[in-house]
Amino acid sequence: MISDRLAPRGFGHNTLHLKQRNNHQTQIDFVKIICPPYMGKQDSSQKEKKADDLPTVLLLRQPFVLTVYEKQFSEKFRFLKPWESSMPLHQFLSTHAGSVKAAFFTAGRPITADILQNLPELRFIMTTSAGLDHIDLNECKRRGIRVANAGSIFSEDVADTAVGLLIDVLRRVSAANRFVKAGLWQKKGDYSLGHKLGGKRVGIVGMGSIGLSVAKKLNPFGCIISYTSRNKKPHLSFPFYPYIKELAANCDIIIICCALTDQTRHMIDKNVMLALGKEGVIVNVARGAIVNEKELVECLLKGEIAGAGLDVFENEPNVPEELFSLDNVVMTPHHAVMTDESLNDLFQLVIGNLDAFFSNKPLTFEVVQA
Amino acid sequence: MISDRLAPRGFGHNTLHLKQRNNHQTQIDFVKIICPPYMGKQDSSQKEKKADDLPTVLLLRQPFVLTVYEKQFSEKFRFLKPWESSMPLHQFLSTHAGSVKAAFFTAGRPITADILQNLPELRFIMTTSAGLDHIDLNECKRRGIRVANAGSIFSEDVADTAVGLLIDVLRRVSAANRFVKAGLWQKKGDYSLGHKLGGKRVGIVGMGSIGLSVAKKLNPFGCIISYTSRNKKPHLSFPFYPYIKELAANCDIIIICCALTDQTRHMIDKNVMLALGKEGVIVNVARGAIVNEKELVECLLKGEIAGAGLDVFENEPNVPEELFSLDNVVMTPHHAVMTDESLNDLFQLVIGNLDAFFSNKPLTFEVVQA
Repeated sequence: MISDRLAPRGFGHNTLHLKQRNNHQTQIDFVKIICPPYMGKQDSSQKEKKADDLPTVLLLRQPFVLTVYEKQFSEKFRFLKPWESSMPLHQFLSTHAGSVKAAFFTAGRPITADILQNLPELRFIMTTSAGLDHIDLNECKRRGIRVANAGSIFSEDVADTAVGLLIDVLRRVSAANRFVKAGLWQKKGDYSLGHKLGGKRVGIVGMGSIGLSVAKKLNPFGCIISYTSRNKKPHLSFPFYPYIKELAANCDIIIICCALTDQTRHMIDKNVMLALGKEGVIVNVARGAIVNEKELVECLLKGEIAGAGLDVFENEPNVPEELFSLDNVVMTPHHAVMTDESLNDLFQLVIGNLDAFFSNKPLTFEVVQA
Repeated sequence: MISDRLAPRGFGHNTLHLKQRNNHQTQIDFVKIICPPYMGKQDSSQKEKKADDLPTVLLLRQPFVLTVYEKQFSEKFRFLKPWESSMPLHQFLSTHAGSVKAAFFTAGRPITADILQNLPELRFIMTTSAGLDHIDLNECKRRGIRVANAGSIFSEDVADTAVGLLIDVLRRVSAANRFVKAGLWQKKGDYSLGHKLGGKRVGIVGMGSIGLSVAKKLNPFGCIISYTSRNKKPHLSFPFYPYIKELAANCDIIIICCALTDQTRHMIDKNVMLALGKEGVIVNVARGAIVNEKELVECLLKGEIAGAGLDVFENEPNVPEELFSLDNVVMTPHHAVMTDESLNDLFQLVIGNLDAFFSNKPLTFEVVQA
């Protein structure tokens, strides 16, 4: 179904992972996800059309997947790109208001009621992310606008990053790499010790598809898993703590895997960090604003916690510069989801969902609001 | 049994991991390991003695574990330290020849027949490492000198490092960390994509306790495991390749976990790397000399393989400087075994084994030569 030819850069047998795809559902605060049994198939009967005849899809920013797969997308859809127009955004949207039934949005650009008001014909939003915090879902529900997200296609990659960041912080891989590459091994000799993963008590914050994948991956390391989540998961035997502070007090490490919502914003604050303690480590692969970043920086600088592995930040791409010199803080640029392979999966999902929307077929990973 | 008080630096509940300790046996080329059911208990009835009355143990270098646990060791044993004497080594050894029944050696200092010849009364060598390539085992066997090593106490930590290095190389964690900390995210925007672990074909070289642990840890990542080893392991269902080149040709990644022996020295050469291919990755947590380092450097510089995660090198602490600038090469200073927790385990093992030797009790991890 997925051809190697489409991959922007190869990695040996880079489609093999599809065999292992995990179809656990993404945990979102108040929505359910509908997963058809297969990812959106492309309609091979669709012939090449002139650009003007193609279905119109609104963008507000250029999604990275579109840059990489521009040719394949442009054979099937005509994308409206307001940033290429000299018109102000509102005027651009008003001009095209009558023709925009579908939009393809990225995370990080808020889709407010105000924006939606300019698009009276809009019936479908496809977003590149698993998170939905950038979209006014209540307004979408009120208007009957369907929304589909990236579902769980990124879950394994995000979980891999969480484990990678944790090993890096505990075993000081990045810092040791810098030490060796600066020629300090010869000059300074032994490098400082790290910490064992086995036996560490790891608290998962948000036991959705990512959290569950992290738990499964850390289990053979001998980590002792517990979790908090909106509700106890009856099928899981890991200990459940209803309150984040209680989880932190009973763990050496917390790994943040939940969605950003009004309830989770700044949930990880100084109180939680103090409960985690001076030898505690925080890993965040979810959203920056789930952590009170100012308090996190304070706690790291004061040694109130032992370290952090951070893929996400409150004000990306701005990162607290106070952390740059800390070896016990490992930072990556919100790229937990970003692999060649997951980008290919996203391409397949988006093109399949846009096809499905315009031909009245079921959507993959449609978000259904309760 | 093991007290937090003894740990040089704490990490929350740093003895919990003992509950998960894996007692798989280390794979060594021609020896068997005897593992009593518990790690060497200390004899609490032993009273403080004057230093001269304590059993004598020869060192050739200061083991790191002794530096950290000097006080505890010095209460029970008197260590002979030739580097503190003005005598040349041979003279020092001759002077003490009559009193040296036990020695405590580190890896990296060859224990040759020539050294052993100076120690006619030597009956026991304790070594800090799992590897035994630094000891002339044939001479020990001929002389009836018992040898005990670190057995599998480091296996989990080494396997953790292997997984950490692999995630780092595939997902570019260290390089991304450097990118963010150099303030380049704001300036340069998106960071280049990494590669997914899921679906990658991982070949384990040496299916001893470390190799098995790596396999178990990578399994939930969706990696497809196969291996080579001296013999096929009848209890394992992973595909077995008798020849390293065949393994490499059928894998995206090889992880070196075997002992260094005459048979494995330079086993991973250019031919193996070419069989692995341009998108292949090599991780080495075993011994540097298993890889032909000159050819590895050439292959990395020419792009004949895609990347490497290296904890060990042929001529430590010297590292090929040509690799310093390569983001696709992650290097750590032979510290795969080094955690606070494993150091504490090693302390318990060594002090227990020295006690056991001097009181004619069974040794833990005694090496029995076939």
